Amino acid sequence: MGRISGLLTEIGQLESGLHAKDLLLTWEQTPDELKQVLKVAEVLRLMRAENIDTRVFATGIGVSIFRDNSTRTRFSYTTALNLLGLGQQDLDEGKSQIAHGETVRETANMVSFCAEAVGIRDDMYLGAGNAYMREVGAALDDGFANGVLPQRPAVVNLQCDIDHPTQSMADLAWLQEHFGSLDELRGKKIAMTWAYSPSYGKPLSVPQGVIGLMTRFGMDVTLAHPQGYDLIPAVVKVAQKNAKASGGSFRQVASMEEAFKGADIVYPKSWAPYKVMQRRTVLLRAGDFDGLKALEKTCLAQNAEHQHWHCDEAMMKRTKGGKALYMHCLPADITGLSCERGEVSQGVFEKYRIATYKEAGWKPYIIAAMILARRYADPARVLGQLLADARPRMKRAPGSGQ
Amino acid sequence: MGRISGLLTEIGQLESGLHAKDLLLTWEQTPDELKQVLKVAEVLRLMRAENIDTRVFATGIGVSIFRDNSTRTRFSYTTALNLLGLGQQDLDEGKSQIAHGETVRETANMVSFCAEAVGIRDDMYLGAGNAYMREVGAALDDGFANGVLPQRPAVVNLQCDIDHPTQSMADLAWLQEHFGSLDELRGKKIAMTWAYSPSYGKPLSVPQGVIGLMTRFGMDVTLAHPQGYDLIPAVVKVAQKNAKASGGSFRQVASMEEAFKGADIVYPKSWAPYKVMQRRTVLLRAGDFDGLKALEKTCLAQNAEHQHWHCDEAMMKRTKGGKALYMHCLPADITGLSCERGEVSQGVFEKYRIATYKEAGWKPYIIAAMILARRYADPARVLGQLLADARPRMKRAPGSGQ
Amino acid sequence: MGRISGLLTEIGQLESGLHAKDLLLTWEQTPDELKQVLKVAEVLRLMRAENIDTRVFATGIGVSIFRDNSTRTRFSYTTALNLLGLGQQDLDEGKSQIAHGETVRETANMVSFCAEAVGIRDDMYLGAGNAYMREVGAALDDGFANGVLPQRPAVVNLQCDIDHPTQSMADLAWLQEHFGSLDELRGKKIAMTWAYSPSYGKPLSVPQGVIGLMTRFGMDVTLAHPQGYDLIPAVVKVAQKNAKASGGSFRQVASMEEAFKGADIVYPKSWAPYKVMQRRTVLLRAGDFDGLKALEKTCLAQNAEHQHWHCDEAMMKRTKGGKALYMHCLPADITGLSCERGEVSQGVFEKYRIATYKEAGWKPYIIAAMILARRYADPARVLGQLLADARPRMKRAPGSGQ
Repeated sequence: MGRISGLLTEIGQLESGLHAKDLLLTWEQTPDELKQVLKVAEVLRLMRAENIDTRVFATGIGVSIFRDNSTRTRFSYTTALNLLGLGQQDLDEGKSQIAHGETVRETANMVSFCAEAVGIRDDMYLGAGNAYMREVGAALDDGFANGVLPQRPAVVNLQCDIDHPTQSMADLAWLQEHFGSLDELRGKKIAMTWAYSPSYGKPLSVPQGVIGLMTRFGMDVTLAHPQGYDLIPAVVKVAQKNAKASGGSFRQVASMEEAFKGADIVYPKSWAPYKVMQRRTVLLRAGDFDGLKALEKTCLAQNAEHQHWHCDEAMMKRTKGGKALYMHCLPADITGLSCERGEVSQGVFEKYRIATYKEAGWKPYIIAAMILARRYADPARVLGQLLADARPRMKRAPGSGQ
Repeated sequence: MGRISGLLTEIGQLESGLHAKDLLLTWEQTPDELKQVLKVAEVLRLMRAENIDTRVFATGIGVSIFRDNSTRTRFSYTTALNLLGLGQQDLDEGKSQIAHGETVRETANMVSFCAEAVGIRDDMYLGAGNAYMREVGAALDDGFANGVLPQRPAVVNLQCDIDHPTQSMADLAWLQEHFGSLDELRGKKIAMTWAYSPSYGKPLSVPQGVIGLMTRFGMDVTLAHPQGYDLIPAVVKVAQKNAKASGGSFRQVASMEEAFKGADIVYPKSWAPYKVMQRRTVLLRAGDFDGLKALEKTCLAQNAEHQHWHCDEAMMKRTKGGKALYMHCLPADITGLSCERGEVSQGVFEKYRIATYKEAGWKPYIIAAMILARRYADPARVLGQLLADARPRMKRAPGSGQ
Repeated sequence: MGRISGLLTEIGQLESGLHAKDLLLTWEQTPDELKQVLKVAEVLRLMRAENIDTRVFATGIGVSIFRDNSTRTRFSYTTALNLLGLGQQDLDEGKSQIAHGETVRETANMVSFCAEAVGIRDDMYLGAGNAYMREVGAALDDGFANGVLPQRPAVVNLQCDIDHPTQSMADLAWLQEHFGSLDELRGKKIAMTWAYSPSYGKPLSVPQGVIGLMTRFGMDVTLAHPQGYDLIPAVVKVAQKNAKASGGSFRQVASMEEAFKGADIVYPKSWAPYKVMQRRTVLLRAGDFDGLKALEKTCLAQNAEHQHWHCDEAMMKRTKGGKALYMHCLPADITGLSCERGEVSQGVFEKYRIATYKEAGWKPYIIAAMILARRYADPARVLGQLLADARPRMKRAPGSGQ
């Protein structure tokens, strides 16, 4: 309980404008705003652990728009809504994935009369996902300003073409938990590196989200990938700028070996070159399925040349004391388990399996915190109220010790 | 708050039998019953605006049966259930869309053990949708009478082949809001007219719902459509009878121009001739896809002859002072935006865009009111209780001003 | 109210270890544990009838994994979750129906961060369904033990290849209600018999569940089927052993006529021979669709030789006083109604139609009781608390008599 009270005091001292804007890219937020989300997430998690009811809404729904299949993100979002007392309703757009203009404006309003959050996952089209979220946000602003909507729901970026803020913030929350505090991360070396996978077209949002966020708090961030597997150049520039501002560092190297050297944390994960994602977007929009097949074939062949980008025991030995923390957004491609040859060996994965689960476990709380920070100008006050009320999440009979 | 109290008094004075019957066609209800739904909807909306928790159910589910795709209606229904404290579960019938007899009777009971509402959208088959709702209702009566169900859930008509009561009642609530009161609508001229659209097979339930309801409260209702685009004759007779009884008028004219002349309100919208819908029903039942394609082709060609049924600025100039209120159930076919040539020009639509959104915004409250009026013999009392309790919908910290 | 208090006292006196293990096969539980579920279900049903709010959870979700289509079970599970205050989220595995190993372990944890229950229906693959549930359970144990999950959700067997405990327990609850008490069932003759249906591949879990459970409480259980339509031999052995232990009896006969003779209760229902189910599993796993078609053809032809296994009025006359209670898990194949020739005649079914609906009506309460018994070491205490609080399930205005 003391820990919760302390966090509430800290939250109250942060300067945050999150209640007036959607968190769509972490690098558009101030450090205080990111800290606010981290601390609110921690409070919600502690309250649940203390069996305190965390609902702030008696009624209201969260809309979900998944333009790509999803299991883990769907459950995290549902769980976050449930923690706050909200119901959920999917918007199934069917095939109208490239709807724009009046259709977006109208639909966004039609589904939001009593919505508190609109969670969107849209990572298929480079240049389109984040833009779509802003279009939805503008439609909601318009509806709210004109008296159509009695409230402005939070738009939650559940993964776009550029960033994956609920993932990277959950990653950061996990690092904070693992190393003890945000301050402890200062100077820690993290290696975000490409790894081989027998699949293709994996989005860029995870590595981009990681280099865009971990450079904010004084960490030494290394990005590594085979030649040609570039991330969006503008995001790499963001990471460089961030590192300078936060007193950390950002560098790029050309091998997993070099990146792992002396690392405290490693994040080996496959992705597709951003130029391939661009080409893929053109083909997807054109409905050119033969072109897509040809592109996939070329890329898989190209990937296969880099099978040695593999996180195994030997590779891990290069890290600091051979004991770096392995991270992954899951599911990982595990050699000999989920595929013949993948991102990580069975031995390494099994050693850090529980750690990656814990990393993922932050996501529902991060999402709930983002909604709370968007819907309350002063989230510490309402959380304080929940703490004071201390209604049980799970009913206990007095004296039962349960 | 004063407005809410006043409405509760008014609701208490109405004679209503809605708690003992499903509202499946507005013209089967007395004026008092329709007023009850309107006023309960207004109270629920005001309470939500005042941050008062509107839940009357701690547990219970609403079943949804959508025999046609739906986004807007689905969200309105979900939201209505959420406002009352109910969860939702879809009944996905797969391909068994023409289930009857024991299957309907059994299924209706199996899904309703703890159901408070069964919302049904079934507008594909002329002569079948409303009949199916009554079959479900009879099954629920049977289950309740025999002790299978501890309560009789409300059957909610979310659109059928004949009427679309949640839409027309939302339309009426919006007119009431816009013009100030139900009494202000007396003598107002409303033009329900066909408009060109490049699609075919749009249901009849909206225009039928509008002429069937707006003739109840002394309005001057004009119906206009090209020759051959008739609504179901029995519904037109209902409108004539209603107008006579309410002191309003009902007339039919042969052009949009004539209908718009001096109108206070215009509702230009495409639909398919009822004879086409009849033919389509026969073909659908027979699974005759070649026949359906041929019918579509013929109808689209026939529609194309009536492209001048178009609501543009020139057409709007014919209305009273050039300033009639434009209405639409959404989504509208907007010329140059959603199609090359549609029901309404961009200029007219944009001018009334927010108005149409507000029109739609009444739907969740109308649906919630219908459920409440079906499940409570005296809804004013329970609403009064909610008002007295005044539990917050969204938790506020004391003194936070949020 | 007196009845509820009495039941709570009885529940408090039972020895149960259900809070520490999943109920996956009824024959793995002690009589006290089964009685606990029955009595908790009855309390929940009575409380709801008395308009008492039965929610013990303020937040939390129930995960549903349906590896086969389902309407009735889905609604029962949703309703059970809702009765306890839980939300629901489907895990849609798409085509990955034979996922194992790390995928299962990881997914089970990823969806369960705030889950209180994981309901699974998996009855397609002989030898796999129940095993899959145990694999999920082990993954949840692992996650809970390692601090990934703050609670260990209840795994609910919503039908597997071996048992269908929510069905058989609902059947038993219904028999208890119908005959007055569990003790009244002692010595009652129940005939679980195969019946003809024009379909094939119906799971074995219902007849196996019935003979595995009804032999626990001193009933005289008769199993009848045509030659070759055997159940899994190990389950038949379980039934024999159970009967011996409970002071009842278990026998197998070769005709419906003989099984019905003097029966108090009859349960005529189609199923596929377990050897066919084995063969089908091999073909399904191999994706051998031609083989599956050939198997279906052979089986339907074989079934057709047993059309006289039909529960009609003449057959019912053979039962005790001609008045045995007819049971079915629904939907039944009704001759002349759902098919030309089926399991039961229209006359017999119609006479017991309401009875079968009431039988099914127990399912939501049985499922809720299973979750409660898994999540509370002493469910009587928390139920007593609900009774003491007596919050209304459906809000009533004071003095309204509603």
